[in-house]
Amino acid sequence: MRFNVYVTLKRGVLDPQGKAVMDALHSLHFGEVRDVRVGKFIELNLDGLPEQEARARVEKMCQELLANPVIEEFRIEEVRA
Amino acid sequence: MRFNVYVTLKRGVLDPQGKAVMDALHSLHFGEVRDVRVGKFIELNLDGLPEQEARARVEKMCQELLANPVIEEFRIEEVRA
Repeated sequence: MRFNVYVTLKRGVLDPQGKAVMDALHSLHFGEVRDVRVGKFIELNLDGLPEQEARARVEKMCQELLANPVIEEFRIEEVRA
Repeated sequence: MRFNVYVTLKRGVLDPQGKAVMDALHSLHFGEVRDVRVGKFIELNLDGLPEQEARARVEKMCQELLANPVIEEFRIEEVRA
């Protein structure tokens, strides 16, 4: 079973990496870029668990390791084959 | 106009970060995890260009800065308000 996890900084949390990317884009003459936020995209492959249980496990993984719940939020998406 | 960009390692390219995350998940007793790949998720906000042109510009940004085309591939998704 495959899941995609998107980890992003919460609104309002400063994103220095996004700022650096935006500055780099500006110096490459992409002046139309107004804002950039950088997050993580994690593809997980799990050994067969029932779907409900698998999703709950992935949620637990996010809370314990993949995201920092103080400053980040996450979204889980099941990938259907 | 908002775009999401997903940058991932090409199939076959070794992902040491993904491997490290998988090992960490295993030691946290998530033994069901068989594979992990870690990529980047970039949210871009552009000042008003026509949609076609904006997408072409984002593609150029990916080729020039956001992704390393030798080892990475990218996917662009427009976010409709």
